[in-house]
Parts: sequence; structure tokens; C-alpha cells
Amino acid sequence: MDIKTFRNYGHRFVDWIADFYENIESYPVLSPLKPGEVKKKLPLSPPIEGEEMGRIFDDFQKIILPGVTHWQHPSFFAYFPANSSMPSVLAEMLTASLGAQCMVWQTSPAGTELEEVVMEWLRKMIGLPEGFTGVIQDTASTATLCALLCARERSTGFSVNSRGFYPDKEAQRLAVYTSTEAHSSIEKGVKIAGFGRENLRFIPVDEEFRMIPEELEKAIEKDRAEGVTPCCVIAALGTTSSLALDPLRAIGEITRREGVWLHVDAAMAGSAAILPEKRYIMDGAELCDSFVFNPHKWLFTNFDCSAFFVRDPGHLVRTFSINPEYLKTSVDMEVKNFRDWGIQLGRRFRALKLWFVIRSFGVKGLQEKIREHIRIAEEFAGWVREDPRFELVAPVSLNLVCFRYNPAGSKLSEDELERINRELLEELNLSGKLFLTHTKLAGKYTLRLCTGQTSTSLKHVREAWERIRTARAISAM
Amino acid sequence: MDIKTFRNYGHRFVDWIADFYENIESYPVLSPLKPGEVKKKLPLSPPIEGEEMGRIFDDFQKIILPGVTHWQHPSFFAYFPANSSMPSVLAEMLTASLGAQCMVWQTSPAGTELEEVVMEWLRKMIGLPEGFTGVIQDTASTATLCALLCARERSTGFSVNSRGFYPDKEAQRLAVYTSTEAHSSIEKGVKIAGFGRENLRFIPVDEEFRMIPEELEKAIEKDRAEGVTPCCVIAALGTTSSLALDPLRAIGEITRREGVWLHVDAAMAGSAAILPEKRYIMDGAELCDSFVFNPHKWLFTNFDCSAFFVRDPGHLVRTFSINPEYLKTSVDMEVKNFRDWGIQLGRRFRALKLWFVIRSFGVKGLQEKIREHIRIAEEFAGWVREDPRFELVAPVSLNLVCFRYNPAGSKLSEDELERINRELLEELNLSGKLFLTHTKLAGKYTLRLCTGQTSTSLKHVREAWERIRTARAISAM
Repeated sequence: MDIKTFRNYGHRFVDWIADFYENIESYPVLSPLKPGEVKKKLPLSPPIEGEEMGRIFDDFQKIILPGVTHWQHPSFFAYFPANSSMPSVLAEMLTASLGAQCMVWQTSPAGTELEEVVMEWLRKMIGLPEGFTGVIQDTASTATLCALLCARERSTGFSVNSRGFYPDKEAQRLAVYTSTEAHSSIEKGVKIAGFGRENLRFIPVDEEFRMIPEELEKAIEKDRAEGVTPCCVIAALGTTSSLALDPLRAIGEITRREGVWLHVDAAMAGSAAILPEKRYIMDGAELCDSFVFNPHKWLFTNFDCSAFFVRDPGHLVRTFSINPEYLKTSVDMEVKNFRDWGIQLGRRFRALKLWFVIRSFGVKGLQEKIREHIRIAEEFAGWVREDPRFELVAPVSLNLVCFRYNPAGSKLSEDELERINRELLEELNLSGKLFLTHTKLAGKYTLRLCTGQTSTSLKHVREAWERIRTARAISAM
Repeated sequence: MDIKTFRNYGHRFVDWIADFYENIESYPVLSPLKPGEVKKKLPLSPPIEGEEMGRIFDDFQKIILPGVTHWQHPSFFAYFPANSSMPSVLAEMLTASLGAQCMVWQTSPAGTELEEVVMEWLRKMIGLPEGFTGVIQDTASTATLCALLCARERSTGFSVNSRGFYPDKEAQRLAVYTSTEAHSSIEKGVKIAGFGRENLRFIPVDEEFRMIPEELEKAIEKDRAEGVTPCCVIAALGTTSSLALDPLRAIGEITRREGVWLHVDAAMAGSAAILPEKRYIMDGAELCDSFVFNPHKWLFTNFDCSAFFVRDPGHLVRTFSINPEYLKTSVDMEVKNFRDWGIQLGRRFRALKLWFVIRSFGVKGLQEKIREHIRIAEEFAGWVREDPRFELVAPVSLNLVCFRYNPAGSKLSEDELERINRELLEELNLSGKLFLTHTKLAGKYTLRLCTGQTSTSLKHVREAWERIRTARAISAM
């Protein structure tokens, strides 16, 4: 492709993207396609001759687009959001064009230094104390794995790295603690790092789905009594199912006393800490050893961009450091080489989009968005609360509402309730007008409505509520 | 930002990008900045009020751009390339705009199905046999870690995942094998997965830096005799220092016989397998259990895009599978949910750029580029060979030339040679006109010239050679 053709299609793509954003509400949120429908329209073998971009772009619109679930649709209420914004998309255009590898300082000094600066901005914005240092990871899954590895190495004097899990005489059994509501990435990380799932303790939660510190204490004591070394606690600042906030201060006091690594997974909820009136969620966060939240979830920055903070980067660097001749540079003693701050060697220039987003919105602009998302979730929760046919299944801590159809006095069994709410969910999602997902809370099949997509407003949750309460699945009830 | 402003800046950015590509040779390849020079121009705190995009874009050009090392400059000969192309950049614009999460099928059916199709295209293009299944990972580091984890679990009946490295009675000591020339990501992966660096065996190489199969055999025997279980061999199809090709068939026969997992790291060189005349490099690849190469290195596709193939995806899924309620969908039994094929839960829609690149170039177009890169590397090697002041330090297998200044009959010590070649390298890189990096081969300080940037042509290696042979650092010699 020559530059003229690129310029031509670049402009066409910009107009298409702008139109797409303008009309995004006309697309179904959840792709209506059945398994195999995209695949069957694509050839089994690659083309031998190059094709015109016009034809590829046509196929993108005809074949691919109908198979896309629109995470940028304002009626996307599913999972946690992966929101984006126009300044972020603009930055991604530049990032893709520069195509810079930010593995070491030399391979793009601005990549490293801008990352240092914007991570420091973020640290201040969420109120983590000075002394925490940030690095961008791809996902919270990866950040949590990094935390588990640092904890493993600190617990064993860096001997698993060097010798494996094989001390001379005694078993080096390490335990990890998280709540029964914790994210699946923790179990995955525990397996990857070689702890074994058997050594992951699921600490019970209270009626609001928060880890019970006394139960954590008991589990740690029990392990010590059995010769198992308590290694790492992972607290959720916002569980995935219900956004429950584990009590950080109480947990942090235990981990400090016990010399156990505390990692805080604030994947979505961390963004709320930029609001002065929500800053209380960070109470006790200063006691943690590492902290992660995802600007790619609820801070208008394209996936992937996960903000990982550590109290002592020395652990990170000592855990991950490699130093082959072909990566040495003359300034290695003066700079940060982020290749040693995580799992991957290769790194995109991800700081750029964060810089664009923070500057374009300004802290105030970001706060307004987050505040409004929380406000409309609370409004929605109010409607649920007032309607006798529905109930809230968990407290609404920030921008997630967990609810279900369960008419007052109906005495439907849990199985019946699950069936009806499942049908309700399916009907709503098939409409293409909104997308919710489900979970289970204390055994109850629960619908989740999360308000975090960049352009979601009161209008959208109003429409959602209207569709929910008038759905056919529950109209005969 | 409103859509009108986005449209306006989108068009300005497209023009800037097109101009940037048009004039890229006027930029210094290696950023000339000193540590701290970007940082000191940036405020310590984020702006409270939002800023105009025009101002951000100005700062990007004034502050950030001078700190970028230009990986897309045709005189970028350093490391391995991370090349890109205009169709790939166009696709990245769409990917960023859709902002779709491809963690499970439902979250974007086209994301999953296009990935299945393009990975099948790639499999055919490089001549891996039917039966290998592909998935896109972010980097070869991650893919290699996935392979190590699958090997670990296969060796132990999936018991490290469930129980950790603690069998009831005997030590479950597992060994991993790679050559002394292997990439640093292997040691990193061995540490992450809990094997311990002590259990990583560095197998000696021959005079062409290829793993010696007989030495591998001996190391496996020795481990068995000592009660250690041989678990995984990682062969390099193109080492980082010299692009040495480990003998896959001989190694594969050993791993098959011994029941050891064979992973092939073909990070850059794998792309050469799309050429019929270079297909011989894949001889024996059919014996491996997993294989990785990076279209983001030498197949004109933006970072990150690493193509990982496995013989039996069952190992991958069983190693990584998690199944929390909040991720369950009604079609889970009918579809691939790529969240279970790797470490991260979140996944970008990376198949799109690969689809754009393969279709826009066509297989023929890709072959022409790769063929030309190899041809100009060979030309360059010829000039080195003919100049009595220089020597080749390793055979030129594909697009990497390892050479140094070492005048015939000069009897300079290794220390003196290192000093001179280091000065030569520094002089060349400071010129901003080209960027090379170094390595050590059999103790010899060596310069590497890799021809893989998308627009690198004979003209650029000619200019590079002219600068090298007339450099001040060696003019007095």
C-alpha cells in the first residue's frame, strides 16, 4: 500500500468511525450471530494475490461488524465495562503508527518516561500514598500474577526462582488467601505460579459479600499450625459479582502483623477513588504491598491498560530481572527498563493514550463521568427497590446493581427463580437494545447491571429499566 | 470530546501519520535524548481542567516525538524488528474504535471466529501440519510460558495446578532444556512457572550456535539417572543473537522418544517459512507440541500479535480453564472461549489486523517482502566477507548478519576488539542515521544487523555499509 492509498483510506476510516460513534445506538449491543456464522463466510485459505483495501473494508462491514458485540454502546451493562473514548482512540492511532517497542528505556525513552509520569499522576488521583511506584500491565490478571510471584519470592528469599519449589529438607508449602467472591484470575495465577489450587484458601464473606477479617486470621493461624507458610492475601476492592469492597484496613493490619504480602485487586472500582466523596474506599490501601486497577475498564482508556502499583519495585525487578547481552544498554544503571517489571519482554507504548485521556478530560472531567455513572446506578437501584416484583440481591456500592425478578410473597423456588430470570436475561439481550450478564450470589441467580460505558446516561438506564419491567418473560407472572 | 472534534482531529492525525511515513527517514532512528529529558518537560501532577486536543497534539510532537526510537524507520536494524504496515495501522484504528473484548465467544463472536480463520491461514502459510491449532498471544514470552505450563501439567498429570509442587512423598523435580543461546524469556518463564532456574539445563551449541542433539540426550539421561523428570525442551528456530536454527528433527526425535514436550520458539524466523525456498527450516517441526512465531516481528502486523500453535489444545484448556458463573454463556459447549487458551482474561481483537495484512499484501506480497529482506542481508554479508577489515561472526541463516571490525592479521586482543566495536556501534547509533545493536557470540563482542523493517531496501543496507566502513572509530586503524 502506498502512502496516497493509506491517506485516502485513513480519511475514510475516520469518517466511518465518527459515523459509527454517532449511530452506535442503532447497532444491537450483543451480536445476534450464531456460532459459526462468521467463519462460514470466510475462505479456508489466505489469498495468494493482494486485495484492494476497499474490498477488505467492505467485508469488514458486511462480515465482521455483525459479529461484534458493542462494548462502546451506551446500553452495554454487562460484565465490567471496557470503555474507551475519542481522545484514547486518537492516541491509539499514533501508537499504532509509531509502532515503538517500549521494552527498555533506549527502545523509546519517551515510552518509559511518559509511563513514569502518568502512573505518578494516577497514583495521586486515586490517593495511594507517596512511595508507591506504578507500571502499566496489560490486564489485572497479569498484574495479580506479578503480585503472586513477588510474594512467592519474598516469602522464600527468592529461592523458588533460583531453585524451584525444592528446598533441601522440608516442604516449602505456601498458602494464598482470597475471598469466596474473588475473581477467577486469582485461581489462575495461583496455578501458574505453582502454588497449587489446594493452597488457595477461600475466606468466607459476610452478608454483603466482603471478606471476613476474623476468618482470614483463623485461616492463617491454621496454616501456621500445620507448617504451611502464609504467603499472600488478595483483597478485592470491588468483587466481580457484586462489587463488594473487602475491608482493607482490617485485612492490612493482619497482613502487616503476619508479614504476608497484601495485593489489592481494584480492577474496576479503583477508578471511583478519583472522587473525593468515594475516596473512603481506599481506607487501608496504604497497608498493601501492591495494588491494581484498570483504566481500560472505567477510565475511558482503550484496552489494554492496567495500572499496577508496588510499594517496593525492588521485589518486582528482582523477581523478573533478566540481563542478556543483546538487551544491555549503556544507560541501564540510570533508567527504568520496564522489561524487568513484568512477564512480557515486548511492550506497547501504552502511556500515550492514558496521557491523552487524562489531559483531554482533565481530572474534573473524569470525576464528572464517574460520579454520573454512580448516580445513575443508584437511581436504577431505587427503581428496583420500589418495585415489589424485583429485589436487590446485594448492596449497591458504586456503579453495579445486582437484582432479580422475585415478586414479594410469591414463594417461587430458587430453581424457578433461576429459570425465570434466565429467560428474562435472554429476552433482554436478544432484543439487541441492551446487554446485561448474570452471576450467582449466595446461590441466587442474579442479574448485573453495570453503568460504566463512557456515554451511558440516565436515559439509557431508564430505557433499560422500562424493558426489564415490561419484558414478556415476566409479563404473565 | 464531541464527534465533530474527533472527526476534525482524526483527519489531522491521518495526514500527520501519512506525512510521518513519507518523511520518516528525516527522523533519527535512535532517540538522541538523555535520561530524564522527557520527564523534566512534563508536569508532576495531572491537569484539573480538560485541555484542548490541539495543545496535547502539539506537546506530542514537541515533547514525546523526539523521545521515540523509530522502529518503523527503514534503517532500523537493531534487535529483531517490530514491523508494521499501513493496512495494519488502518485495522488498528478500527480495533481501537470498536474497543471489543474478545475474552469469550459471546463478547465478540467475530473476534473469536476471525482468529480461528486467520490462525488457520498462518498455519498453512508456514507449513505446520494439519492438526495444529492456533491462538493469538501477546508475545512469544507469554506463548513460551504457556508451553512451559502445559508441559509441567502434562508431566505431572495436572497435579501442580491442583496440588502445587508437593507430591505426597517424593520430590517432583522437573527439568527444562534449551540451548546456551536461548532467549531470556525462557529463563523468565522457568522461574515464573516454579521450576527454578537450577532446573533449566543450558545445552551446548555447535560452532554455528545450534543446539547439539547428542548433548541434549546426555542431559536428559543424566537427569533421569538422578531422579529428575525431563519435562520440556525449547528449541530455537532462530536464536536472538545469531538466528541459529536448532536441528528440529533430531531434537524432535529425542523428545518423542523420551515423552518430553517440545516447544519451538521461532519468534522472528518463523516468518521465513512462508517462502517455499526456505520451508526447509521447518523440517521436523511436525514433531513439536507447540510452536510460536510473531507476525508482529517480521510479518508487517502491529505489535502485539504472536501466533501460538499447539498440537493438542486440550492441554492448554485444561491448564488454564476457569469457569466462574459470571463468565458462563449458553453456547460454551459449542464455541472456543479463548480466555482458556492463555494467561490473561481480557483480549483485544487482534485477528483483525492480521486479516487486513494478509489480504492486503496477499501471500505473494508477503513472500516478496521477506525474500527481499533475506536477499539484502545476504548482499550485506557479502560486503563484510570481502572487506579484510571485517569478519562475519556467525553464518547468515536468513535476515540477520553478525559481524565485527577485526582487520585480518591485526592480532588485537578480545578486549581491544570489544572496545573498538563498541565505539563503532556508538558512533553509528549516535548519527541517528541507522540503529544496530550488539551481542556476544562465543565471547566475541558482535554487531548485529537485522533487515526486517517493512520498507528496508537495498539502498538502506548500502548506506549502512558505507557508514560502517567509513566510521571515525575505525578510520585511524
